[in-house]
Amino acid sequence: MAVYTEISDEDVRTFVAQYDLGDVISCKGIAEGVENSNFLLVTDRGPFILTLYEKRVNPADLPFFLGLMDHLAARGLSCPQPVAGRDGVALRELCSRPAVIVTFLAGMWPRRIQPEHCAQLGEGMARLHLAGDGFGLTRRNALSVDGWRPLFEASRARADEVKPGLADILATELDLLEASWPRDGLPAGIIHADLFPDNVFFKDGALSGLIDFYFACNDLLAYDVAICLNAWCFEADGAFNVTKARLLLDGYTKVRPLSAAERDALPLLARGSAMRFLLTRLYDWLNTPAGALVKRKDPLEYLHKLRFHQQIRTLNDYGL
Amino acid sequence: MAVYTEISDEDVRTFVAQYDLGDVISCKGIAEGVENSNFLLVTDRGPFILTLYEKRVNPADLPFFLGLMDHLAARGLSCPQPVAGRDGVALRELCSRPAVIVTFLAGMWPRRIQPEHCAQLGEGMARLHLAGDGFGLTRRNALSVDGWRPLFEASRARADEVKPGLADILATELDLLEASWPRDGLPAGIIHADLFPDNVFFKDGALSGLIDFYFACNDLLAYDVAICLNAWCFEADGAFNVTKARLLLDGYTKVRPLSAAERDALPLLARGSAMRFLLTRLYDWLNTPAGALVKRKDPLEYLHKLRFHQQIRTLNDYGL
Repeated sequence: MAVYTEISDEDVRTFVAQYDLGDVISCKGIAEGVENSNFLLVTDRGPFILTLYEKRVNPADLPFFLGLMDHLAARGLSCPQPVAGRDGVALRELCSRPAVIVTFLAGMWPRRIQPEHCAQLGEGMARLHLAGDGFGLTRRNALSVDGWRPLFEASRARADEVKPGLADILATELDLLEASWPRDGLPAGIIHADLFPDNVFFKDGALSGLIDFYFACNDLLAYDVAICLNAWCFEADGAFNVTKARLLLDGYTKVRPLSAAERDALPLLARGSAMRFLLTRLYDWLNTPAGALVKRKDPLEYLHKLRFHQQIRTLNDYGL
Repeated sequence: MAVYTEISDEDVRTFVAQYDLGDVISCKGIAEGVENSNFLLVTDRGPFILTLYEKRVNPADLPFFLGLMDHLAARGLSCPQPVAGRDGVALRELCSRPAVIVTFLAGMWPRRIQPEHCAQLGEGMARLHLAGDGFGLTRRNALSVDGWRPLFEASRARADEVKPGLADILATELDLLEASWPRDGLPAGIIHADLFPDNVFFKDGALSGLIDFYFACNDLLAYDVAICLNAWCFEADGAFNVTKARLLLDGYTKVRPLSAAERDALPLLARGSAMRFLLTRLYDWLNTPAGALVKRKDPLEYLHKLRFHQQIRTLNDYGL
């Protein structure tokens, strides 16, 4: 949970007075999102989310993120939409931080993933990929293949503190990924790049919206699918759930068919995705002070997933 | 901030289905309250607060707290009101914890106390004292004069780690308070006992409600006033703000006049109130592990307040 900045009642009132949202009824910090401070703001017009961007978000990226949410919402995707003030401007400042009010999405993220969630996730992700088409701004994925070596070097010397031999495993895998990564030739576009269960809302069993576009970027569309295979299709005991994976892929291809080249690349993309989360978790694990408010996530969960995908040559090997 | 228990979407839906509140639109953990887990629950009927009682609340006290909120709300006080399920029962269970849904109060607590807040607090507290009359249940104040010595003994040996000489100061003060405490003879009734700024909501400059009745009990009414003198009338630099104190007392007496005996007792009650928060903060300070999620509050803030009141003989000495 994360509320890094405390806002005073006067500050909220003054801020909201710049919008056409009526009076502030209430504003409470909420325990969602780990990068920013989020508040559930209730005004005469209903509930909204007020976000203050903390230091892990680069302010230069905000026009991309906010513009993307507008673009996607205009194309019918259910996602938070930035609310403009009376002057037409959505991105403002509050408590010396960039701040924005976005629309409120119904639904809750699923704590226990059921197969049907994966089917709907697949569809929703494909709709996102189609809706991203035509968006005018671009953002490089700093956490794709070219970003992994610097990240690895930052943790290499201490990687074996987490598990003996880990540095060597990562070095070998990184060489392979860099040599064989499908840099061109696969369809690219806007991807979410962080579509974990806590960023996908369901209401009454139906997908009701996608949130948290603060890792969104331009990259291979199938890489987003690979991220979701890792984030949604492994059980808590580490077992890969073939049913969930099949439903995810079926849901996706109903909306946007995967080419033969994309299907062939999926096992490698899944290894790359496992590498990406393994490396960022490893870095955070080694650099988060014990007792910090942010809970560290286990990097070895992703070593397990990486090893699983290393044994896979074709989609058939998944049991699909 | 505090969300100790994570609730799944299925659990929330099943829980809310027992009420006449329509469908669940959203349920987000909020960063308010330090004793319990609180969620802002939005249903078709609007926003509500869902509270799960964690181990610091004694379940045997819950009928008192919930009954009191009902009693006060029925007498026109603006406070959260427990919502009953279709079976007429308000106190239920969720995630193996006692759980209740209460009505949502408009407003925010004031981060910067202005004198006018104190005037309205005084009025609101007096209305609470009048509205509590006739409530059928009673609850002893375990944190009043009889509770201080056991609390002191639990910290005595290590008190000087916080400040050299602190144990002696506390022992002397405790002897005096026990000998001179006005145990009888002053008007008693229901008091809030924790009316700090974060438990008092204002909207558009007007007091909009009181929350968090989980320290409420039967005690001297003027002791509640003394708690508020300490909680609302000192500036961040430690200075006692006479204007705020005067407005608080004037606001109170407009609704419920203080007797001469109550006025005479106020300096002593203020010492006792300072002692109570000094002792609980000292205990928490010595017994909260570094790095715990709960932020420790400085006990010495209340040593300063205690010393201030020790120099006061009559209300005139406050400059009132």
